[in-house]
Amino acid sequence: MELYSDDYFMNEALKEAQKAFDADEVPVGAVVVADNKIIARAHNYTEHLTDVTAHAEMQAITAAASAIGGKYLTDCTLYVTLEPCVMCAGALQWAQVSRIVYGASDSKRGYSTIPQNILHPKTTVTRGILEEPCGEIVKRFFKSKR
Amino acid sequence: MELYSDDYFMNEALKEAQKAFDADEVPVGAVVVADNKIIARAHNYTEHLTDVTAHAEMQAITAAASAIGGKYLTDCTLYVTLEPCVMCAGALQWAQVSRIVYGASDSKRGYSTIPQNILHPKTTVTRGILEEPCGEIVKRFFKSKR
Repeated sequence: MELYSDDYFMNEALKEAQKAFDADEVPVGAVVVADNKIIARAHNYTEHLTDVTAHAEMQAITAAASAIGGKYLTDCTLYVTLEPCVMCAGALQWAQVSRIVYGASDSKRGYSTIPQNILHPKTTVTRGILEEPCGEIVKRFFKSKR
Repeated sequence: MELYSDDYFMNEALKEAQKAFDADEVPVGAVVVADNKIIARAHNYTEHLTDVTAHAEMQAITAAASAIGGKYLTDCTLYVTLEPCVMCAGALQWAQVSRIVYGASDSKRGYSTIPQNILHPKTTVTRGILEEPCGEIVKRFFKSKR
């Protein structure tokens, strides 16, 4: 896997998703990248924290802002294994993140189900990076819960 | 002001907004009420925390879940001085909050600008409680910034 490619960073996000899986959390992982450097890593932690707001993206935004020392992620790319939900898309809009790359789509809860762009107008989006493993880990998780 | 009325609890949220104002934060305050008891109080803290996700509602949701010991706010009412944004509405949807009461509308960033209900289908909404003071404090804040 080529260093600094979208596949490379999504694979790092997938490692975070695996940590969530191992912790019995819905397996979604995220990393934030600036200048080809990972400045934040996070995974879903809603069960552990008893907090619906503890999605991977939310924690990645908070951690990245802390790393940068500023609220705005205008020169950052967020990699996340699953399409962000409406809450996370709203947060990414406030953060003015430069670019979002996601793996699997979420046809139920994904922000793109909303008939209006709720991201920042300057944010670009790439989807489908490592789509298969990003989606597969979520399916495997819910299968194990039945 | 009648005890346990919407006006009463919104006034408590306004007190939180005033704390935000005094801390040089966009003055939005929130309280979460269950069984006529305030179980969480919060105000916007985005500047202090350098975190765009630190809206009053987000912190109120996290604090209320912590007070309850569960993720879901199905028997709770959130009072907030300003109409929730898309991020906060998305969080309130995940939390399945029973009822939302807000003061002033937000014609730019409010969730109701989205042409689709993004709240939980069971959530009821009351707007316009103490609308004038809830809106006035925000106007006064931005005026002081110019």
